Amino acid sequence: MSRITITIYPWGRKIRARKGENLLDILRRANIYIESYCGGAGTCGKCKVRVLNGDSLSEVTEEERRLLGNDELRSGQRLSCKAKVFSDMALYVPYEFVNHYPYTKKEKFNIKSNLIPAVKSFRLKLSPPTIDDPKSDMERICESLSSLYGVRVSRVDPICLVDAPVVIRKYNWDVEICVWMEEEIIAVRPPFGKGLYGLAIDIGTTQLGMYIVDLKCGEIVSSGSILNPQVRFGEDLITRLNYIVKKGKKGLFEMNRVLVEGLNGLIDRLVKEANISRSEIMDVVAVGNTLMHHVFFKINPQSLAISPFVPHICFPFNIKARELDLQVADTAYVHSVPLKAGFVGSDTISSITAVLPDLKDKPKLIIDIGTNGEIVYGTEERLLCASCATGPAFEGGNISHGMRARLGAIEKVKIERDTLNVTYGVIGGCKPEGICGSGIIDAVSQLFQAGLLDRSGRFIEERPCERLRKKGEFLEFVIAWGYETKDGKDITITQKDIRNVQLAKAALYAGAKILIERFGGGKPEKVFVAGSFGTHIDLLNAYLLGMFPIVGLDDIIPKGNLAGFGALVALLDRSMRNEAEKFAKKVKYVELSASSDFRREFFDALYIPHAKDTFL
Amino acid sequence: MSRITITIYPWGRKIRARKGENLLDILRRANIYIESYCGGAGTCGKCKVRVLNGDSLSEVTEEERRLLGNDELRSGQRLSCKAKVFSDMALYVPYEFVNHYPYTKKEKFNIKSNLIPAVKSFRLKLSPPTIDDPKSDMERICESLSSLYGVRVSRVDPICLVDAPVVIRKYNWDVEICVWMEEEIIAVRPPFGKGLYGLAIDIGTTQLGMYIVDLKCGEIVSSGSILNPQVRFGEDLITRLNYIVKKGKKGLFEMNRVLVEGLNGLIDRLVKEANISRSEIMDVVAVGNTLMHHVFFKINPQSLAISPFVPHICFPFNIKARELDLQVADTAYVHSVPLKAGFVGSDTISSITAVLPDLKDKPKLIIDIGTNGEIVYGTEERLLCASCATGPAFEGGNISHGMRARLGAIEKVKIERDTLNVTYGVIGGCKPEGICGSGIIDAVSQLFQAGLLDRSGRFIEERPCERLRKKGEFLEFVIAWGYETKDGKDITITQKDIRNVQLAKAALYAGAKILIERFGGGKPEKVFVAGSFGTHIDLLNAYLLGMFPIVGLDDIIPKGNLAGFGALVALLDRSMRNEAEKFAKKVKYVELSASSDFRREFFDALYIPHAKDTFL
Repeated sequence: MSRITITIYPWGRKIRARKGENLLDILRRANIYIESYCGGAGTCGKCKVRVLNGDSLSEVTEEERRLLGNDELRSGQRLSCKAKVFSDMALYVPYEFVNHYPYTKKEKFNIKSNLIPAVKSFRLKLSPPTIDDPKSDMERICESLSSLYGVRVSRVDPICLVDAPVVIRKYNWDVEICVWMEEEIIAVRPPFGKGLYGLAIDIGTTQLGMYIVDLKCGEIVSSGSILNPQVRFGEDLITRLNYIVKKGKKGLFEMNRVLVEGLNGLIDRLVKEANISRSEIMDVVAVGNTLMHHVFFKINPQSLAISPFVPHICFPFNIKARELDLQVADTAYVHSVPLKAGFVGSDTISSITAVLPDLKDKPKLIIDIGTNGEIVYGTEERLLCASCATGPAFEGGNISHGMRARLGAIEKVKIERDTLNVTYGVIGGCKPEGICGSGIIDAVSQLFQAGLLDRSGRFIEERPCERLRKKGEFLEFVIAWGYETKDGKDITITQKDIRNVQLAKAALYAGAKILIERFGGGKPEKVFVAGSFGTHIDLLNAYLLGMFPIVGLDDIIPKGNLAGFGALVALLDRSMRNEAEKFAKKVKYVELSASSDFRREFFDALYIPHAKDTFL
Repeated sequence: MSRITITIYPWGRKIRARKGENLLDILRRANIYIESYCGGAGTCGKCKVRVLNGDSLSEVTEEERRLLGNDELRSGQRLSCKAKVFSDMALYVPYEFVNHYPYTKKEKFNIKSNLIPAVKSFRLKLSPPTIDDPKSDMERICESLSSLYGVRVSRVDPICLVDAPVVIRKYNWDVEICVWMEEEIIAVRPPFGKGLYGLAIDIGTTQLGMYIVDLKCGEIVSSGSILNPQVRFGEDLITRLNYIVKKGKKGLFEMNRVLVEGLNGLIDRLVKEANISRSEIMDVVAVGNTLMHHVFFKINPQSLAISPFVPHICFPFNIKARELDLQVADTAYVHSVPLKAGFVGSDTISSITAVLPDLKDKPKLIIDIGTNGEIVYGTEERLLCASCATGPAFEGGNISHGMRARLGAIEKVKIERDTLNVTYGVIGGCKPEGICGSGIIDAVSQLFQAGLLDRSGRFIEERPCERLRKKGEFLEFVIAWGYETKDGKDITITQKDIRNVQLAKAALYAGAKILIERFGGGKPEKVFVAGSFGTHIDLLNAYLLGMFPIVGLDDIIPKGNLAGFGALVALLDRSMRNEAEKFAKKVKYVELSASSDFRREFFDALYIPHAKDTFL
């Protein structure tokens, strides 16, 4: 009765819906995930669709009027989160609006590690039982493990018991035994032909990264990353957390299922690439920020939503992959690296273990900028950490023409100081659609260096320049003219965008400054910039913008995906799991929002590069 | 095309079948489980059905001619395992032929035990987190457990983490924590109103027994037993084992599923009776013979089918109830009591722990007669055990008119020495249908005492008696005349039945004798007869038949379900789990079939009461 049909072009799909449902929910149900930074709150304006017969929809809302221009509204565009459907209708959703979870090869792993993995395999040639020696199979295996290898296991995964008796006899008592932590037998396998692999998982707010490593030789056999499919619930952590708080256990399970499906898809891709079997992945280490950690391990994260934002569990634990529906060997354990606090997750602890050899003498600063900014400062002896609310500007969020670093994003910007000519680089070399994080940092820094911004971040209106123009009461700067862009519209940087970049970089700068002060002053010997952010930004532009305190440019070193590397290190050298636990206890969490120093530093750091710095 | 329809009266059900299927398989598929001792081999003759139009069936086989009389064949009766169906047909399957898995209240538990259960609950009033004390919930709980109760847990069941954050806050940081073995948190619950129960499971070949015990006070809140629904695959262990060997993993899973469904049905019944919730059952201990153990824990038992019949695993282990689909608390562990050998299961080890205080000084003999006979002899210091192939005669198997101890079974028989008058008692007081184990022992013993059997077990033909008659070339004795019985036919004891009872009792006697000899001679101070068998037989009749060696009648003591009691003891006092492990290692298994002494003793013991005994 109240069922209606939505036809979606150019997909050629028909979806059934209930009267009064909004288009975003309908599209999600059909697994068509258009970008939505705010998760359906009606504030980001990203979830645009073109409606072919608008009469079927609820009236245009106030939010849509504000976020869509008249041209867009006239051409039938609506915000899918606000438009409710009341009769059969047709919709146009361009393929390129939709998240396809693009797969990216991960960079090379360049951390040295011992090879003492948690899971090892042992070849045993057993003597078959006789009437005079009627020991059970498992007693026979355990005695042999103990006498040949000095390994004293105390239990067997019950899943092994289904097939082990058959395998042992089929291979004439010549078998390979996989043992976890010298404690538990997790496989009884044929004596040859089976590999032993570990999987490192880095669950980022935006990206899911993975490495598969051969635990017999320490070599990485495949790696890659995809967009975290949870972005359909909102780009940022707070939106996703609120979704769970609102929906309760059901929301948690929904969010968990989406994540695990994404992880399993990536596992599938990586095992095919490496030409191995899922069942050969015998060990897993997972890291992530606190919310991602809680969602992955099905821990209700509601305590993260209210002050003092404590995690439910911080200490490390191990849980069978099958309990998480993770499609690796059924009997494999997933190791959870410890967390520190609500805003300092196991990714940060993992990053510390990844650079442990570098923390020996002089203090280092580790900066990990994902959707949040986590910073660590100190030496092996003494470490401080904090979380800075940078907001999503560095990932293209909260920016008028911001977008993620995908095909069509402007990732490099250069502005000639004299001519004010703009040149830019686009991911994939195609016509640009928007600007991603590294492009925004470039743009703001170059605007400043070109003398178009003053130190407070205001556009200098007096500078004659056709690219600098008024939009409403505010100024904006045109990076790409409409004739160059994909949708024919100018791509600009607005005064508000610049403010958001200033807020983000000031939070980071001030946070680092406070940690250094609390540590007792001095300056970091090196600044390690973790994450793909560190690899992709132009360090000079970021430096001149004033993102990093005190040090010289040469001391700022991009380190790649440290969180993922730490997970790899924990796979290759199980003693690093204890180190992680030790450091999770040792590192002192500094709550920046409670500190008046922080506010002072923050306001100073809003200046470009800093209120007290003069240069250029 | 080749699909046909079978109509079953008086059930009024129609089942679809394939041409050429046998009736037993068809009925099983429809969940109509008629008795079948041989599991479909065509040797027991129990799976009779009446066919209303026999033309639709395959021809009467040789086995059916042998096992069914002419009258039965003429009346349309067939063995359902042998009759194959080729066109639409109708079938008559009396309700009373079908296993209804009757539920029996268990006897009272009369073993004293400490109350130190593996699972304990602790009330904690926690201080909520603040900015200055931002510990995670679990760190808070662990610290509190340690400081208040000295309990240092090292892990949490991940299932707890879903709801714990919500429960903690809902009850204002006042919660009850359930801890397993002072090691793992298995529940975070409201501070009041929830019980803490343990479940003892005794998986017998024929019966599934259960006790639910309150772990806070040690009181049994409900108990009961049902028929093991696996009897549909055959009454005896060998038939079931062969089924799995033939079908492989699929057969194992099928057999497991049937067992677990039966157990869950009984749990359901018992929790309702006790008015508690399944989720309050926080600990489980399971015992059973080696095959039942392997099937319950999904261990491929194929090694039990070939010499030297070794179990796959003997040592104790713990596995989450959810991995076994057992419907108790998701986070509860099921503890597996250790096994000794292929024919000495955890039921025997459990029985030893149940009578541990009695094993202090003088040697005791423990006899557990289920479908097999397991015997243990010795003291706490030194114990021997063995398994005797008694066969199913003591449970009514391999006996012409044998049946299980259910409604309509003759359970007591008395034969007047002078008049040869027979009186008998029937379970439920109705018209008899057959004889169960205790009735058979009575009958054979009474026949002997009445002078109708000689010491070799042969009928004394010369004694004038209208009840003793020829059937074919052999003699049989009428226990109940046709006008007294349910189906109007005489219930008799044949010469072959008597032989089967002699074989069973000789195996038991000789086994016990050998153990006593191996121990160094002497005699047991007491004989403990375990199992419902011990409670139901007439001890004097059994004694006079020569079932128990050496001791006097007064020293033979029925002990009830010792295997189940041992499981209860392991629930109430967790140190008994270590004792069980200790005794599983300590007790020496004696392989009777390899011993020439055994054969000598066995032949002597075939006599009534024994070749070397004279009495009466």
